[in-house]
Amino acid sequence: MRIDIPSVNELIEAQHRIEGKIKRTPILTSLTLNNIFQCELLFKCENFQKVGAFKFRGATNAVLNLPKDRLKNGVATHSSGNHAAALSLAAQNARTKAYIVMPKTAPKIKQEAVRNYGGEITFCEPNQKAREEKLKEIVKETNAEFIHPYDNHDIICGQSTCAKEIFEEYKELDYIITPIGGGGLLSGTCLSAKYFSGKTKVVAAEPKGADDAYRSIRDDKIYPSVNPQTIADGLLTSLSERTFTIIKENIDEIITVSEENIITAMKMIYERMKIVVEPSSAVALSAIITKPEKFKGKKIALILTGGNVDLTNLPWLDD
Amino acid sequence: MRIDIPSVNELIEAQHRIEGKIKRTPILTSLTLNNIFQCELLFKCENFQKVGAFKFRGATNAVLNLPKDRLKNGVATHSSGNHAAALSLAAQNARTKAYIVMPKTAPKIKQEAVRNYGGEITFCEPNQKAREEKLKEIVKETNAEFIHPYDNHDIICGQSTCAKEIFEEYKELDYIITPIGGGGLLSGTCLSAKYFSGKTKVVAAEPKGADDAYRSIRDDKIYPSVNPQTIADGLLTSLSERTFTIIKENIDEIITVSEENIITAMKMIYERMKIVVEPSSAVALSAIITKPEKFKGKKIALILTGGNVDLTNLPWLDD
Repeated sequence: MRIDIPSVNELIEAQHRIEGKIKRTPILTSLTLNNIFQCELLFKCENFQKVGAFKFRGATNAVLNLPKDRLKNGVATHSSGNHAAALSLAAQNARTKAYIVMPKTAPKIKQEAVRNYGGEITFCEPNQKAREEKLKEIVKETNAEFIHPYDNHDIICGQSTCAKEIFEEYKELDYIITPIGGGGLLSGTCLSAKYFSGKTKVVAAEPKGADDAYRSIRDDKIYPSVNPQTIADGLLTSLSERTFTIIKENIDEIITVSEENIITAMKMIYERMKIVVEPSSAVALSAIITKPEKFKGKKIALILTGGNVDLTNLPWLDD
Repeated sequence: MRIDIPSVNELIEAQHRIEGKIKRTPILTSLTLNNIFQCELLFKCENFQKVGAFKFRGATNAVLNLPKDRLKNGVATHSSGNHAAALSLAAQNARTKAYIVMPKTAPKIKQEAVRNYGGEITFCEPNQKAREEKLKEIVKETNAEFIHPYDNHDIICGQSTCAKEIFEEYKELDYIITPIGGGGLLSGTCLSAKYFSGKTKVVAAEPKGADDAYRSIRDDKIYPSVNPQTIADGLLTSLSERTFTIIKENIDEIITVSEENIITAMKMIYERMKIVVEPSSAVALSAIITKPEKFKGKKIALILTGGNVDLTNLPWLDD
């Protein structure tokens, strides 16, 4: 399979396409955290993005880049997470429909988010095969356009705008760190770093309990994510050929992190930055906790991917 | 007692004095909250201020405005809250000492904050008389300058910079809302509104269970805060002659709010704004929940006063 790598012009076009439709999120800093880790940390706050996650960038780009005659049939996806909410709102904003296939076990709060943004939910059994089959049915019925959460050219172009915004504000970064799940955000970040930053190295952070991307890059073959165990519920998916190809060409390192470090990082972000993030967001900072020597004295951007979290079930409440 | 009201020049000087020493905090917005309340809300995020609260503005101004020969003896106060931490860091930054009198029952986390910023704690019995006596002793021993948390000219000038920053970004505000405890922030806000905004009305929000300021303004006499009952632990103090005088001349209305509305507002801020605030911060938004008709269609700034909260004891966890 030949992968069509997004070009510098496609990334620039994506940014123009979604400008004003998405939030240009702020970059926050904390002197206390800089002192603790002895480096300069810049937190890109996608938890403040519309629908509370960076996913709205890719979804908006994918929807707006559809030709009119295909857009009118709507869009469809299978997801129980932020992509489902993001695609629903992006479709609503473009005055078209979003068909969301969700496992019937998906939390009520995620179902409500999708419905609030006008998405139409079809439930399926909670396994990958049922999801895909149900999605096929829906697409056949409605002629809606399937927008994959990450294995999609326009999605990756959309996600790239997050890092591009960082590079517009900060030229001389040593590192940019993102978490890795299916690799959509990381692919976009790799491309933005390559096109818009001379020297910034891209680091990915992955939970040890869901380290399929780490093993895939190490062994140069894609391992599926089998029975992943992590509180970072946005990072359970497997790489695709597309994201694998982009990432392996551009990544400096994938750092795997313990659950303990994810929780420590998450609590630090709440206590020191005074912001609400979901566990997946904390994975980037936990890479610094895990390998502090690598980052000492460096200037580092971290993408905080989202803020959709159950506030009655924060992980430190179990202590 | 003749009250010396801070002049427009003193407010401008205060802003110059503390510039670069304090954070110019961002103003965040939420389309969802605007839709819910049918008005335009601008949240000034003092939870992102150094030490996690607006109190650092006043403390920094008060410390930096001391003549050198008095500054060298240090500063002192009685407080178990944000003012204690703020004064400690302001003193540390000015290379002098902070002596903090604290009730021996003060939470460990507040003691630690003060110590982390270099403050020297002396414990006393948990009542007002013991606090004041212990403070007098300390001041006599050390010759340190007593910096009252709000009944202090320089503190009020410092707190006024928060609203001034808002007016620099947004000229045409209908309302600015702050919570009221002792009235330092509210006094500064009243003066900034008077000097730097033609038409903005100042509204204060106060917990029903600690409504001494509401009653004081209504009856034109200061009632002390006796046995206040509210989760907004930053708002337990009484007005002073100084803050009472400034506030009564400049306030549009004091809205009293229920504990239920404070908790609702606080949860909304976490869920919709994705930021961490302490209960006192949520009191401003709860005024809008309490009197939605007053604010419909208006452009309103709200000061989120701080973000120092026990994350293992968020009020909705009791449900």
